[in-house]
Amino acid sequence: MEITEYLDDMRKIVDRALDEYLQPKADIPKTLNEAMRYSVFAGGKRLRPILCIASGEVVGVEEEAILPVACAIEFIHTYSLIHDDLPAIDNDDYRRGKLSNHKVFGEDIAIVAGDGLLTYAFEVISSSYSDRKAKPEVALRLVQEISIAAGIAGMVAGQVVDIESMGEEPDKNILKYIHAHKTGAMITASVRAGAIVADATAQELAALTNYAKNLGLAFQIVDDLLDVTGDRERLGKTAGKDAEQRKMTYVSLYGVEKASQMARETMNQAQKALQIFGIKAEVLNRLADYVIDRQFQYASRYV
Amino acid sequence: MEITEYLDDMRKIVDRALDEYLQPKADIPKTLNEAMRYSVFAGGKRLRPILCIASGEVVGVEEEAILPVACAIEFIHTYSLIHDDLPAIDNDDYRRGKLSNHKVFGEDIAIVAGDGLLTYAFEVISSSYSDRKAKPEVALRLVQEISIAAGIAGMVAGQVVDIESMGEEPDKNILKYIHAHKTGAMITASVRAGAIVADATAQELAALTNYAKNLGLAFQIVDDLLDVTGDRERLGKTAGKDAEQRKMTYVSLYGVEKASQMARETMNQAQKALQIFGIKAEVLNRLADYVIDRQFQYASRYV
Repeated sequence: MEITEYLDDMRKIVDRALDEYLQPKADIPKTLNEAMRYSVFAGGKRLRPILCIASGEVVGVEEEAILPVACAIEFIHTYSLIHDDLPAIDNDDYRRGKLSNHKVFGEDIAIVAGDGLLTYAFEVISSSYSDRKAKPEVALRLVQEISIAAGIAGMVAGQVVDIESMGEEPDKNILKYIHAHKTGAMITASVRAGAIVADATAQELAALTNYAKNLGLAFQIVDDLLDVTGDRERLGKTAGKDAEQRKMTYVSLYGVEKASQMARETMNQAQKALQIFGIKAEVLNRLADYVIDRQFQYASRYV
Repeated sequence: MEITEYLDDMRKIVDRALDEYLQPKADIPKTLNEAMRYSVFAGGKRLRPILCIASGEVVGVEEEAILPVACAIEFIHTYSLIHDDLPAIDNDDYRRGKLSNHKVFGEDIAIVAGDGLLTYAFEVISSSYSDRKAKPEVALRLVQEISIAAGIAGMVAGQVVDIESMGEEPDKNILKYIHAHKTGAMITASVRAGAIVADATAQELAALTNYAKNLGLAFQIVDDLLDVTGDRERLGKTAGKDAEQRKMTYVSLYGVEKASQMARETMNQAQKALQIFGIKAEVLNRLADYVIDRQFQYASRYV
């Protein structure tokens, strides 16, 4: 099976579960439900939930058991995008080629819809794993893992440093910090969460963590490359926006050629970490290739 | 012991625990820590944590075991105030007599500091109860209880309906919905969380839930009364702001006299619910009196 086929299948499964979790209900205000749905179904690639599922599968658990936490992770990812796009932060009118949440629902509802998605993530984990699907210890570990990764020493920390570095002189350490926290932490948590549901050994968890950290970094470098080499349709956000806002990126610091090389090397590290799983890690291996190919497919004319 | 003495003692204990949880740390950006601390220590009465502790004590658990979830609840309360005050929502420059978070740290940091507090609440619960302090089932129930109360059918729902009703014709059912959700849900969760830590029976939990719902409603009516009868110092926010923004309140719908009477009646209901606990419920009883007295102390000249 081609990796793109696997991705399509999984995306459908994840989308179905997300849709199920976001059904309109009498006790949820209509506007809130619509605002949450709008951004959750605005064309996300579902990379994080799919990583979560693929990681669980490597260790030996069916996707069924992983879906709740995989969806919770996507809710957190979506909330972070909604808040990121707000006029007070990145002031982005477009996201994945569609109007951003606050352009459609207004800033007030966008802020609250983000809060709602973040809170709902923990409701989904604690409710889905409160009974048959996992031992309470496992569910609690998931809440801990994800609240730390999304939290004040994780994604939120990355967001703050990103805000503070806007317009500052480029600095390699700060750039590394921002990416490791703003995107890296939740990508790592996605991979780890799948493994935690699957009751991975310490060795398996360490290997998958290593894979995830490198994958996350490579993913971010590719994203930076796409900002200068891609167009809005491919990228799904306003291309050239980073440069315009004088954001620190791997491209502004290292240039296109060196950044591309770094992406490849990081990806090799990610794949090396998977060796202990042998053939079982085929999907995660190919997922890594796929992420890097996004770049070379569209940007090869530049390197 | 006077109830005010108990409140002072508890407030100190809660403040010490909050301070401990919010110590500056190397992996938390300084600005983020400062912004979170600013609002957490901006003069809150700690009503929710104290209710949480007092409720646990009624059922028979020491405050020590309740402090983590009590602090988590205060973090969520504080995040909701920070986001509430934002220019896009209530646009309030003052809170508890001090400049609101976004006036000091900027809108961007205020949004993210709120996100950080909300996420940290779940980190604190899942981390504090992951070991000796409670069984994992209990911790998981706390996450579930609080994510539901703070969430899309709870506090966030109340916030959305509040936003949508701004400038609309006053409507009693909508007002009731807003208060039951925006403030009521988390006050109820505070009382229930203490009882859950204490492993309350179904009967005890039902009685405390009943107490909390009535207390929350009375608290809100008193708040509305204070907005028209109090001054900024007593109220800690811009007095008269509700009327100015044409917000629906119990006063605008029922008038001062009828609203005061409703507050008293609701409080009687709250206290009646405590009867099964006998003398052990003395603190919760007096807490109810105290809440209502806030009103009659400062507004008696009007009724």
